[in-house]
Amino acid sequence: MPLTEGKVLVAQGGGPTAVINQSFVGVVLESRKFSQVTRVYGALHGVRGIVDEDFIDLTEATTRNLNAVANTPSSGLLTTRDKPDAAYCRKIFGVCKAHDVRYFFYCGGNDSADTCRIVNEEASKAGYELRVIHVPKTIDNDLKVTDHCPGYGSAAKYVAQAFAGVNLDNRALPGVYIGIVMGRHAGFLTAAAALARMYPDDGPHLIYLPERPFSKKQFIADVKKTYAKYGRCMIAVSEGIADAKGRAIAEQFSGGEKDSHGNVQLSGTGALGDHLASWIKQGTSISRVRADTLGYIQRSFLGCVSEVDQAEAREVGEKAAQFAIWHNLDGSVAIKRVGDYAVEYFLTPLSTVARHATEMPNKFINKQGNNVTDAFLRYARPLIGTMPSVARISAPTVKKILNKK
Amino acid sequence: MPLTEGKVLVAQGGGPTAVINQSFVGVVLESRKFSQVTRVYGALHGVRGIVDEDFIDLTEATTRNLNAVANTPSSGLLTTRDKPDAAYCRKIFGVCKAHDVRYFFYCGGNDSADTCRIVNEEASKAGYELRVIHVPKTIDNDLKVTDHCPGYGSAAKYVAQAFAGVNLDNRALPGVYIGIVMGRHAGFLTAAAALARMYPDDGPHLIYLPERPFSKKQFIADVKKTYAKYGRCMIAVSEGIADAKGRAIAEQFSGGEKDSHGNVQLSGTGALGDHLASWIKQGTSISRVRADTLGYIQRSFLGCVSEVDQAEAREVGEKAAQFAIWHNLDGSVAIKRVGDYAVEYFLTPLSTVARHATEMPNKFINKQGNNVTDAFLRYARPLIGTMPSVARISAPTVKKILNKK
Repeated sequence: MPLTEGKVLVAQGGGPTAVINQSFVGVVLESRKFSQVTRVYGALHGVRGIVDEDFIDLTEATTRNLNAVANTPSSGLLTTRDKPDAAYCRKIFGVCKAHDVRYFFYCGGNDSADTCRIVNEEASKAGYELRVIHVPKTIDNDLKVTDHCPGYGSAAKYVAQAFAGVNLDNRALPGVYIGIVMGRHAGFLTAAAALARMYPDDGPHLIYLPERPFSKKQFIADVKKTYAKYGRCMIAVSEGIADAKGRAIAEQFSGGEKDSHGNVQLSGTGALGDHLASWIKQGTSISRVRADTLGYIQRSFLGCVSEVDQAEAREVGEKAAQFAIWHNLDGSVAIKRVGDYAVEYFLTPLSTVARHATEMPNKFINKQGNNVTDAFLRYARPLIGTMPSVARISAPTVKKILNKK
Repeated sequence: MPLTEGKVLVAQGGGPTAVINQSFVGVVLESRKFSQVTRVYGALHGVRGIVDEDFIDLTEATTRNLNAVANTPSSGLLTTRDKPDAAYCRKIFGVCKAHDVRYFFYCGGNDSADTCRIVNEEASKAGYELRVIHVPKTIDNDLKVTDHCPGYGSAAKYVAQAFAGVNLDNRALPGVYIGIVMGRHAGFLTAAAALARMYPDDGPHLIYLPERPFSKKQFIADVKKTYAKYGRCMIAVSEGIADAKGRAIAEQFSGGEKDSHGNVQLSGTGALGDHLASWIKQGTSISRVRADTLGYIQRSFLGCVSEVDQAEAREVGEKAAQFAIWHNLDGSVAIKRVGDYAVEYFLTPLSTVARHATEMPNKFINKQGNNVTDAFLRYARPLIGTMPSVARISAPTVKKILNKK
């Protein structure tokens, strides 16, 4: 079948990740191989840049430059938090038509998939040939259908390396340590802190996820018990933990600032961690209690990338171009795990990924709701690639002379 | 001169660093080459482990195990915040004598150097041959005499990579970003955020150090000016910033918890960042303002080490053993910068390093007191080793069709 001649347009939406540039560069480099592609455009600042026609022409960008950008974290094409409604999507379609765009690729999460779905429908209604592919990315790992999301592995690796390092610190100078991790509704990223454990007494010893109701009383009891056992206690807490009524715990302490989606601001403040620390200080006799909020650094840190995530993010972009331009298909690119560890890519209808996100399955969370299971560790371990190693001294103790009992 | 036969004792004090294990392993491996060394002991939890005689025998620890520990961040021998007085030091000396320790190596900051000095004096008074060497380490880089301190380069690298990543994030999703960095009295680590800048408009655009009085009014004015220029503003702030009277800004918001040295708790809370963010929200019309506190992760992150720092930390340990055992000397090992970039090591009397710390020299801070100078960048750049690279897309813009003016 002779495919439609026209332009390619690629854009990035939502929060940046460490490997989202791999995906857009995968789209660009693969698209440029096809003779029916007349030009390859990138939109700046996502969908907002499309309606404003803020385009750059990537057709002749050098391969070296694109590969260097692919290895750079955060959204090289810049991004937006805009969540288009039907009228906004009609504008996007109007711009695509005006520029003779025939292949549109949008890297983002479930909201971006929904944008793709509506734009695609607008084009169908107008009888305009427009292939639309959603290229998955999110550090939250909360997209439906796919086994996991590009971007998650690298953020998970950062979280694991952060907790592995602080575990060594906490072991050297014991106390209670609380680390607040991103993820409003899905606990995957917080759960990744468990990958930091190497020795049996390593932290995090407790993990609290948004998928289970959070109880202050149980929290304090858990910490007391852990501290009694190990003489220290490391805790990973999702920013999105909520009480039994589903109210975010952070809401109690927030200044009430809401984002464009009507959500209370969770990241970019240390309030939740500080309050959990004060609960421990008040509820136990432990004096050294510290809380860190991992914040924006966990999604953009320069120089912490899972090589597995990096490769998959690139391939997801490449496959997106192939599905659209070789096969004339619309959809969202998804990952299927076919081995231990190997993956394949497939296309799933946009409607299966759009709008609704997913959460951690029950099998990944322990009964008490304060830790992850081995099933989660088996699931997540391959995604973060190689972890730096950690070693303890292996040497015998010496007999005391002065302090003999 | 035939040197004294006896045991080696090595310990680590104060906050962990990414490379402090290189130093203690340097001491152990080098000491084990000398025939007058009868055994090599390590004390657990620093000076506290010495008075409690919590020793492990490192004489036959395998070289592979020790090298693996050297590559592990944080204090492998565990550490303590105890700051010994004269009576405590007499106990340390008593234990050294009881175990026939003749060479004592203590890795730490200026307080640890002071401990070395007093223990050394106790031994002299008693006519007991005891060589005492202070092995420098601190992420604060605030030791006197030495050009810089082992531990600083790796922490500085983490700070630079964190700000470089968040700069990309802030560029993709503009707003005001505040990052709070460790360093109560010395701004070296906060200043390292400047090493994140690669392009002329890269952040951090403003840097506030404890060496200059912090004014809320000036802060808000600086942010407004920067935001007007770049459409965004990234700020690095030392946790130790203080007003013109020398009162820590953080003190206004702290719960009042003090450490064993009588200092207000600065790390392990997000309060300072949150309040600076609220000042910007109240004092400007900027809505997107975020604050992160880098916290404990900046000193212990697994997998972020300056290879220069790593090598120097090892050499400082090796030289410590040589000064004591070949040359029968006491002192603190210091680094002299002899090229661009090369170093030599020398021994300085314990009294020159003990107790008093140093601050950023004036030549490293700009006139306005809100940034660092090129002299600082030249000083610090070699210490962090190789930075991961960052690239921007090089491509022409496309002419608008629908939004033509």
